[in-house]
Amino acid sequence: MTSFADLGYARVDIDRESRQGLPEVVYAPGKRPAEITGIVTELLSRSTGPVLVTRVEPEVAAQVDVPGGTYHEAARLLVWRPAPAGSFRVCIATAGTSDGPVAAEAEAVASAIGLSTWLVRDIGVAGIHRLLAAREELDQADVVIVVAGMEGALASAVGGLVACPVIAVPTSTGYGAALEGITALLAMLTSCAAGLTVVNIDSGFSAAMAAHRLAHTAARSR
Amino acid sequence: MTSFADLGYARVDIDRESRQGLPEVVYAPGKRPAEITGIVTELLSRSTGPVLVTRVEPEVAAQVDVPGGTYHEAARLLVWRPAPAGSFRVCIATAGTSDGPVAAEAEAVASAIGLSTWLVRDIGVAGIHRLLAAREELDQADVVIVVAGMEGALASAVGGLVACPVIAVPTSTGYGAALEGITALLAMLTSCAAGLTVVNIDSGFSAAMAAHRLAHTAARSR
Amino acid sequence: MTSFADLGYARVDIDRESRQGLPEVVYAPGKRPAEITGIVTELLSRSTGPVLVTRVEPEVAAQVDVPGGTYHEAARLLVWRPAPAGSFRVCIATAGTSDGPVAAEAEAVASAIGLSTWLVRDIGVAGIHRLLAAREELDQADVVIVVAGMEGALASAVGGLVACPVIAVPTSTGYGAALEGITALLAMLTSCAAGLTVVNIDSGFSAAMAAHRLAHTAARSR
Amino acid sequence: MTSFADLGYARVDIDRESRQGLPEVVYAPGKRPAEITGIVTELLSRSTGPVLVTRVEPEVAAQVDVPGGTYHEAARLLVWRPAPAGSFRVCIATAGTSDGPVAAEAEAVASAIGLSTWLVRDIGVAGIHRLLAAREELDQADVVIVVAGMEGALASAVGGLVACPVIAVPTSTGYGAALEGITALLAMLTSCAAGLTVVNIDSGFSAAMAAHRLAHTAARSR
Amino acid sequence: MTSFADLGYARVDIDRESRQGLPEVVYAPGKRPAEITGIVTELLSRSTGPVLVTRVEPEVAAQVDVPGGTYHEAARLLVWRPAPAGSFRVCIATAGTSDGPVAAEAEAVASAIGLSTWLVRDIGVAGIHRLLAAREELDQADVVIVVAGMEGALASAVGGLVACPVIAVPTSTGYGAALEGITALLAMLTSCAAGLTVVNIDSGFSAAMAAHRLAHTAARSR
Amino acid sequence: MTSFADLGYARVDIDRESRQGLPEVVYAPGKRPAEITGIVTELLSRSTGPVLVTRVEPEVAAQVDVPGGTYHEAARLLVWRPAPAGSFRVCIATAGTSDGPVAAEAEAVASAIGLSTWLVRDIGVAGIHRLLAAREELDQADVVIVVAGMEGALASAVGGLVACPVIAVPTSTGYGAALEGITALLAMLTSCAAGLTVVNIDSGFSAAMAAHRLAHTAARSR
Amino acid sequence: MTSFADLGYARVDIDRESRQGLPEVVYAPGKRPAEITGIVTELLSRSTGPVLVTRVEPEVAAQVDVPGGTYHEAARLLVWRPAPAGSFRVCIATAGTSDGPVAAEAEAVASAIGLSTWLVRDIGVAGIHRLLAAREELDQADVVIVVAGMEGALASAVGGLVACPVIAVPTSTGYGAALEGITALLAMLTSCAAGLTVVNIDSGFSAAMAAHRLAHTAARSR
Amino acid sequence: MTSFADLGYARVDIDRESRQGLPEVVYAPGKRPAEITGIVTELLSRSTGPVLVTRVEPEVAAQVDVPGGTYHEAARLLVWRPAPAGSFRVCIATAGTSDGPVAAEAEAVASAIGLSTWLVRDIGVAGIHRLLAAREELDQADVVIVVAGMEGALASAVGGLVACPVIAVPTSTGYGAALEGITALLAMLTSCAAGLTVVNIDSGFSAAMAAHRLAHTAARSR
Repeated sequence: MTSFADLGYARVDIDRESRQGLPEVVYAPGKRPAEITGIVTELLSRSTGPVLVTRVEPEVAAQVDVPGGTYHEAARLLVWRPAPAGSFRVCIATAGTSDGPVAAEAEAVASAIGLSTWLVRDIGVAGIHRLLAAREELDQADVVIVVAGMEGALASAVGGLVACPVIAVPTSTGYGAALEGITALLAMLTSCAAGLTVVNIDSGFSAAMAAHRLAHTAARSR
Repeated sequence: MTSFADLGYARVDIDRESRQGLPEVVYAPGKRPAEITGIVTELLSRSTGPVLVTRVEPEVAAQVDVPGGTYHEAARLLVWRPAPAGSFRVCIATAGTSDGPVAAEAEAVASAIGLSTWLVRDIGVAGIHRLLAAREELDQADVVIVVAGMEGALASAVGGLVACPVIAVPTSTGYGAALEGITALLAMLTSCAAGLTVVNIDSGFSAAMAAHRLAHTAARSR
Repeated sequence: MTSFADLGYARVDIDRESRQGLPEVVYAPGKRPAEITGIVTELLSRSTGPVLVTRVEPEVAAQVDVPGGTYHEAARLLVWRPAPAGSFRVCIATAGTSDGPVAAEAEAVASAIGLSTWLVRDIGVAGIHRLLAAREELDQADVVIVVAGMEGALASAVGGLVACPVIAVPTSTGYGAALEGITALLAMLTSCAAGLTVVNIDSGFSAAMAAHRLAHTAARSR
Repeated sequence: MTSFADLGYARVDIDRESRQGLPEVVYAPGKRPAEITGIVTELLSRSTGPVLVTRVEPEVAAQVDVPGGTYHEAARLLVWRPAPAGSFRVCIATAGTSDGPVAAEAEAVASAIGLSTWLVRDIGVAGIHRLLAAREELDQADVVIVVAGMEGALASAVGGLVACPVIAVPTSTGYGAALEGITALLAMLTSCAAGLTVVNIDSGFSAAMAAHRLAHTAARSR
Repeated sequence: MTSFADLGYARVDIDRESRQGLPEVVYAPGKRPAEITGIVTELLSRSTGPVLVTRVEPEVAAQVDVPGGTYHEAARLLVWRPAPAGSFRVCIATAGTSDGPVAAEAEAVASAIGLSTWLVRDIGVAGIHRLLAAREELDQADVVIVVAGMEGALASAVGGLVACPVIAVPTSTGYGAALEGITALLAMLTSCAAGLTVVNIDSGFSAAMAAHRLAHTAARSR
Repeated sequence: MTSFADLGYARVDIDRESRQGLPEVVYAPGKRPAEITGIVTELLSRSTGPVLVTRVEPEVAAQVDVPGGTYHEAARLLVWRPAPAGSFRVCIATAGTSDGPVAAEAEAVASAIGLSTWLVRDIGVAGIHRLLAAREELDQADVVIVVAGMEGALASAVGGLVACPVIAVPTSTGYGAALEGITALLAMLTSCAAGLTVVNIDSGFSAAMAAHRLAHTAARSR
Repeated sequence: MTSFADLGYARVDIDRESRQGLPEVVYAPGKRPAEITGIVTELLSRSTGPVLVTRVEPEVAAQVDVPGGTYHEAARLLVWRPAPAGSFRVCIATAGTSDGPVAAEAEAVASAIGLSTWLVRDIGVAGIHRLLAAREELDQADVVIVVAGMEGALASAVGGLVACPVIAVPTSTGYGAALEGITALLAMLTSCAAGLTVVNIDSGFSAAMAAHRLAHTAARSR
Repeated sequence: MTSFADLGYARVDIDRESRQGLPEVVYAPGKRPAEITGIVTELLSRSTGPVLVTRVEPEVAAQVDVPGGTYHEAARLLVWRPAPAGSFRVCIATAGTSDGPVAAEAEAVASAIGLSTWLVRDIGVAGIHRLLAAREELDQADVVIVVAGMEGALASAVGGLVACPVIAVPTSTGYGAALEGITALLAMLTSCAAGLTVVNIDSGFSAAMAAHRLAHTAARSR
């Protein structure tokens, strides 16, 4: 009946796995290592799927004391019990090198929750032949996650090429009028390519979780 | 070889249907009725799928001179050759009555391009029992499109209940600090429910097209 | 006649206690420890109620040299002569763990000025059953202070459940489109639940003081 | 069990009165007169308290066909079954003449839902003796609603004088840097007077509903 | 010596033609037809080059009483003594049909001041093959003016293809997050293609004048 | 003839003193101590009035190697050859203690350029009797500089009391919705008190220089 | 003792003239002609100086029924009992023709309250010789009011030339990135010319009232 | 056929030199020294022109291990194989000393890619005679790059004087209402001088690359 566990410092949503197919994911900022340890331990004992902690700085990760976890430094992600790779295919495309850390989070989270992923790097529209050369890699995907900062034009270009869902992740790459990612965000929301959807700035995590929802529906269709 | 048709006043993307499964959709604002007539005629002769014109005011619709079209007034949509209803199920949920026109566009477009749709109206979080009472209707969907203005909290609440993809459409409903829909947009992008995706303000059209992309992937999974 | 004390570096409002039922509260940023010491000493000698200093960093607190004070680290609050707990009941609800420090300030200030408080933690709308499970705790309150960042949807959900006043405190929790709390602030101001009121971002202090004003009126009604 | 009534075009929250002491209030924009007629009829038959429709333009009001209603033109408010004036005292203070319509909405709504109200007009801080002269009127209130545009300084000045709750309503009065009320809103949120709370721009309605929540708590204290 | 003519209601910069190679251009908004008539007459008698009035509504144009002028309705431009077409080649590219009026102003102004122009229409990145098909037309230009609204991605794509100067003109096309052209403006300023320059929203005029400056330098190089 | 001195790293405006009655004032940020030394030396030798360097951090001030200078730490100001106190009276009023550093800059600059100054501290409108008690001090001024952050309401209150010029200086005091001083700035610009003027956020310097211009005109009137 | 007159619909500040040397000025928007009539009548009978109503549309002006008034259409100003021209000299400079209406308000108000005024038109920095030619006219002023929209650069240029006070009035002239005057406002606040002060967008009235305050101080100096 | 080189961590656009006359320029932020080393090595071996790395901090530059490079500290630029100075003349003008680093980047990049450059420093409009004295230096240029922060008025003044292209670079110089360069950016975009173009805040690099495009067209004209 009681579908959550009250640890005093946190109320863990135990019911989440049965409702949405994945245990609650832990957001590290503002939590002490001991609290993360407690929540992860609770989740591992009350659920069966992968347990993730996002946005974990290395020095915090080192203090989380739960056996069996893996730390992905580029993605700042802690994972226990990663799911085996399933049949749902996620292509993650970046506009430039600076978008790498956000793409790394998207890929590591998606992979940990059982999606098959691959990365297509550095195909920003300033050299459009690089994008066209990547077309085959894009076409094999069940969903493309486009990670781009500055003006975020890659999302529109990819959106016009592929038929599958495109999830656009604006990044805070750039300076001045890039406004810490706001410009890429607004640009992606107003893309001339129809049917793109957008998540929060720098949120590789959100994109991966959106892909998980897609995989859920695709699996149901089978 | 030449994959577009140049009508002088517009360059029609003939290749779109083979690339993305749907002919180009026509955006009415800024086009004269005669131009819309020309483009629609071209699209009907050069493709086989449904042909749509969005954001058409009634007085413009009345002057578009192509036989066989249907005008959906609430959705401001013109449709020729609508696709038969397929197996992909789209639930459109609104927070309040004022979100109706945007929901109407989402539903009319989705329906015209072959998705099965139903509407769940007026389930804003100010009366949360209404939302809970609608849970079964939500759970049957392959994707839920949430249409909400003001603070847009319905997206988070639905996102926490269902496992399938949730596409959030902020509306310009409200006044003052609602900032013509910017507040709902920002709120949906920062939802505490993981894996939501967001489209532009008042864009029922974008949400329906995003659902079409999902249906494409789901169909491929079968 | 002269209702303030001029300490050279500050003009202390001695009249405040008779006017509003509480001595002036000291805002620490920009004041040196010696100045805080002087002001607190003056307030203790010229009034009879609780004396508070807010937003005090630990290293500053350690240098404030007035006997009898207590430092609440999580709340960054210094208190002398706390009032005994009165009959006015304040429930402080948070959406997630990251909202903790702001809730701590609200609770510590409210408690120091004589209100009865309790905390209901982690009931964000992403897991709405947690909120419903907390309903009894909410219903016992004379006022609910809702502390939430990101999209701040908890305020609307609580506002729709309870009949008592709801004071919403947006927090700067989140990143990207959360805009350092601006998004939660705007969302709370445009809540679809009627009759919420809002205070400044991260201002647990303001919420507690607003609760004090409510208690004043409630007491007068008795 | 079913706590709402589905009219097809709207889902009416029947449970609201038992939960919060007032039937749902109808927001007119975007609703047709016939829909308003239907909803009001439903609310009158399924509840016992006052039924209100806000933001009704005169030409719409004239077409709402439910006997017994009263239209308050300055407040753009329709009311059926107004509550008798209770003991809770609400003072509504305005900075200038242009704030009148918002004050009228606050007063008409508050009065219709059973609060005792009076208006203190034109006491903006540019002539501070007018404010001081009004002090007695302010001191008799259980809550003061301050309605002000431009820089909204009246809220701070009143907040420093009275001990009771102060609800600040920014108005869109002014031009240029007044930013349609955003400036007054931000100024009120950052007031140097402690414990003010704020509602949305031009929302006399929200302020009155917040006062109703206060009255609920005050009544419980008795 | 006196390099301007004082008409009472305006001070005309007579020196402009010798300084910059073109007489002052008249901006119509806020001027009465009689004032425009007076200024144009003065300019025609005190200079030898083309005389232009921009942003002239048709009903104003009809009242300007100076013989020999031509009105370009799509461009809202009045022209006297247009310059013959020179050797400097300006290609004007648009993303979509809605960008047409701004492109029309750019083309009409550029043409009136002696530049050779052509228009490449509807090559937005949602159908990137249309852009690639236009490559030859782009490569022949001495400068490309890119006119695009929404997310403005066409500027980046063109900027990556051609070696000549690219002047980006954001348009107010689009809705919601397009923010009346602000999004396209910011996106163009942060383009990943190096060396683009940007002018004000909807200012086809500014782009044409910038092209005139380029032609000046190119001519000097010969 | 040549009215500036070119030091290679800076072009010093030697003509400024004859044009405006004061040598050019040096803005320190971005200049190396050796450059400041060079500019100050040049100014001292080519003019006769006070020489000032603003926004100088203590460690920079210590390295500026020109004899006879005085460093005002609270004001971050370096001064050589301060002017004797003249007859023009400048009252500097602050809302709270945190506004102190900006007031210090205003006072130190004004004093160095020959104005008579005094400070009235801590008279924010939350305790309006403090302001009324200061009225005599305000009335003796030829100009009042009001320094206030948060909602900046003090400017309006003073503006309504005195007949002389009021220069409002918004400060970046406050947090959240104070938006680093933008809120105070906007509020002061939209003051309901007529005839206030405003300078940039935190610019005590600008206010003092504006006062100097007033003194110039007042002197001419004598 | 009672220093204001309560007309029911307005509270007139009778004390203003003795406090600040001018009767209260009436702001027309939101007031009915009959209310304006009443307030003006009251002010004429209770004071001796000029009585002004600002921002009056012609059709309203025609219905204000108080003998002896003059309507300045360009300035949208109604005036009774204008003051004779005094010795204080106000030069009003505009950047372009579109700034005319704001300059007209500044000039008409300044003139009505007893200041000597003249207008220097169309001296924007795009033709800097026009500004230099106007230098003598500028140098004779006791204060220069600079009225400019778009980028507002004229304020900086004038500020660098003259020694007297410069009051900058940003106007909403321009489009796109001019942001309805916000750009000119921000630019004027950050001028590289020291000691400028700024008033609200389009507020010729504020500039004139600020000039009146200067004249007050200058008169006191005599 | 394959026009890019895939280094694993980056995809280098080898085709760029033939397309646009310059090898791809490397943006350092977010790249490790070893990655920069690899990319530069690849570019040097696959192209013949100058190879540049921008925004390189000194400590990074020291670790880039490719022989023959030069580091320009003020410009934070690394250069290999700089082009010999060509005939295209670029004048870089700054408003004040704080704009120096951005001007240094513009000059170092322009110089490295074969343009002839010179710097005119400190000619801000607060001392307009300095600008007029520089006129001859400005008139000799094929393009003027104007680098200015705060209100950026220098761009308008220069734009009104010269006939050649003017590229305006807003800088983040200033504080408060300067909004980190946004104010200068907006001001330059709305300049009253016709035909200016603008690049991103602080982007000396973009201005130099835009000048390179101009040189390309000028060369073709010969």
